[in-house]
Amino acid sequence: MAILLYDLVGRDESRPFSPHCWKATMALAHKGLDVSTAPTRFLEVPTIEGGASKTVPVIRDGDKVVADSFTIALYLDEAYPGRPTLFGGDGGKAMARFIERWSQLTIHPYITTAALVDLHAMQDERNAVYFRQSREQRFGKKLEDVVTARDAGLTAFRAALEPLRSMLGYQPFIGGASPLFADYIVFGALQWARVATPYQLLDDGDVVAQWFARCLDLHGGLGRKVAAAA
Amino acid sequence: MAILLYDLVGRDESRPFSPHCWKATMALAHKGLDVSTAPTRFLEVPTIEGGASKTVPVIRDGDKVVADSFTIALYLDEAYPGRPTLFGGDGGKAMARFIERWSQLTIHPYITTAALVDLHAMQDERNAVYFRQSREQRFGKKLEDVVTARDAGLTAFRAALEPLRSMLGYQPFIGGASPLFADYIVFGALQWARVATPYQLLDDGDVVAQWFARCLDLHGGLGRKVAAAA
Repeated sequence: MAILLYDLVGRDESRPFSPHCWKATMALAHKGLDVSTAPTRFLEVPTIEGGASKTVPVIRDGDKVVADSFTIALYLDEAYPGRPTLFGGDGGKAMARFIERWSQLTIHPYITTAALVDLHAMQDERNAVYFRQSREQRFGKKLEDVVTARDAGLTAFRAALEPLRSMLGYQPFIGGASPLFADYIVFGALQWARVATPYQLLDDGDVVAQWFARCLDLHGGLGRKVAAAA
Repeated sequence: MAILLYDLVGRDESRPFSPHCWKATMALAHKGLDVSTAPTRFLEVPTIEGGASKTVPVIRDGDKVVADSFTIALYLDEAYPGRPTLFGGDGGKAMARFIERWSQLTIHPYITTAALVDLHAMQDERNAVYFRQSREQRFGKKLEDVVTARDAGLTAFRAALEPLRSMLGYQPFIGGASPLFADYIVFGALQWARVATPYQLLDDGDVVAQWFARCLDLHGGLGRKVAAAA
């Protein structure tokens, strides 16, 4: 039976945008598992599986419900040990947590800033109201006033990717010769931006952009099945 | 036969200070290998093993000469597979490279700034001349003028450690429940600072400082055998 993935969408069900759901999508594909998706909007998240989680992704695998992208990846590796590993051993499991924290604290805040108005525009009417209210409360200003910072922050954002850029001089993926969940962690963040906003985060010649393109090609071009925002 | 480690020192042979040599020292201890050290000053580095490397650490293990801390760690895991792993699998090997690049690009530049004058003061006369000349050429200013930036940069430096700090909410070491080479990578940087300068990089209550203290305790308190700079 296919694993059910609750995947965050806006008005258009064919454009999932959540970075964390993209991590889970790529992890499921990496394991070669059958997936069916339940398109889910922000306001529906608390109702998933009887309130199993405050956030997506959530998966149901038979009787088992698992929330949180990292926990899902750990679960998949444990439940399906015969399929390609997502971590490459215990060291990889531990260090993927560092990379997750790095991505969350280094990449996510800037993308939130850069894509905030576009993310709002993707929501249906009710969810757009929720999104504006919750985000304006978090930032203490209007969405439109948050996004004005993106041009000024772009150079610093690109500089903050330098560890990744430098690492790509040694190996084609964070996971080494081939991708692991650590790649999907960072991919998820950049895919979130790609789906949400036409704002150009990376210079085309950047090796990080080239790595991202390699990730878009993975698993039958799964990431490219959703067109970049225009 | 003991493995010979060429370890960078200044005037005082008992105070090795190189971050990269400390990575190798901890890696050798992690593997439980016998080590003898050859205290080496900057100007002696090009003469090691007939010019085997422009940088330290270098080890000699029987007939085998290996340079570069990361390459040494990879060598030790391959040459001594029956002893505790430094990477915890192929995923850990790959992700440790990301962590190395992060440490090198995020932590090292600030410590260089903060410790530059103190590092100069540790050298003997000839090496102090070399150190001043080479570093002043690199920075394009006097050592004393580089260090003046350290107070202004301290807050940003501490903030840059946030991914590590956040990760420590999940697990006690970068390697997970116990340390791996990835821990020694970051430890090496902070130990370099600890040995070179009394300047306080971390707030005592910082979980990063607590993790560093745990690292100092490892392998019979190996890191504490050199007293903090006063």
